Amino acid sequence: MTARLDAQMAFLIEADRLKSILRATPIADDSRRENSAEHSWHLALFALILGEHGKDVAIDRVIRMLLIHDLVEIDAGDAPIYGEVDSAAVAVAESAAADRIFGLLPADQGAELRALWEEFEANDSPDARFAKSVDRFQPPNLNLASGGGSWRDYSVSYEMFEARVGAKIAHGAPNLWTWIAPKVRAFLSR
Amino acid sequence: MTARLDAQMAFLIEADRLKSILRATPIADDSRRENSAEHSWHLALFALILGEHGKDVAIDRVIRMLLIHDLVEIDAGDAPIYGEVDSAAVAVAESAAADRIFGLLPADQGAELRALWEEFEANDSPDARFAKSVDRFQPPNLNLASGGGSWRDYSVSYEMFEARVGAKIAHGAPNLWTWIAPKVRAFLSR
Repeated sequence: MTARLDAQMAFLIEADRLKSILRATPIADDSRRENSAEHSWHLALFALILGEHGKDVAIDRVIRMLLIHDLVEIDAGDAPIYGEVDSAAVAVAESAAADRIFGLLPADQGAELRALWEEFEANDSPDARFAKSVDRFQPPNLNLASGGGSWRDYSVSYEMFEARVGAKIAHGAPNLWTWIAPKVRAFLSR
Repeated sequence: MTARLDAQMAFLIEADRLKSILRATPIADDSRRENSAEHSWHLALFALILGEHGKDVAIDRVIRMLLIHDLVEIDAGDAPIYGEVDSAAVAVAESAAADRIFGLLPADQGAELRALWEEFEANDSPDARFAKSVDRFQPPNLNLASGGGSWRDYSVSYEMFEARVGAKIAHGAPNLWTWIAPKVRAFLSR
């Protein structure tokens, strides 16, 4: 039992480093950039409140998925959605990160969380699609609240937003896309 | 539907302010103080990993509880566990905060989350006891990792720790108390 708890605690203390991974999006009051730990909390809260807008989703599974979805960034960093990234290189780095970080856990728990993370990444189950939609829906809300946020820093047009973000929101949560699209269009067409 | 989603989003954007509420505990690398949003994420992850050490707990309910347990701090602030606080005044402030913050939601959701928060505060159900244990168990782990943390700032002795923190950890998660007590005793007796 002690060895098992030692492994669980090694994982949980390592996870603390997610609090130092900064994202491209500011927090709503624009005072600083958001980190990936508080982002993960915010997304889990989004899922809890907005679950009724998903289709065939088990919201507690979505919440579990969102709690762990960014842990790989501890090693691989955050890839900003409007940045130029080598997707294949990111995938390799994130897979190695998942090996190391989920590998800190007892084998049964590590395998379970690794599978949940892979389901999220594959974006091919109802739960993963809704989780991914929420992950794409939260940042534009912070950009609207903060007066531009990462759209300003990356000179984002509405067409870029629609292509990189809108499609994924609409895929898992059409209601949320219908709600936010006109707000973003109005903001980015100023 | 739009009015309902408007209310849900007003709540979720207001919740963003939890990212600016600072706690007495530092993050593990001691580089800065932890905020209550990332703390809530870390606790939810603790619950997900450590649920097997609870007794008769529904871990997804515990996770929901931990995601919302600190929202009242947006209005009432964080009351440091080793500080001198007027508990009755804190309870009044937190209750008013719960009225306002959960009141932003559609009535059915606001009532549900308010009830979940009150269950946590009452600390009298298996889920609440485990959630409260986790909330008391995480900070000493950050204090150990960071080389003293809030124990240093508040000149905490092992006897103070045992009285203010240990009893609550042991109440809902005896295994976790057995694991951490000797580590804290050794650290605080240096």
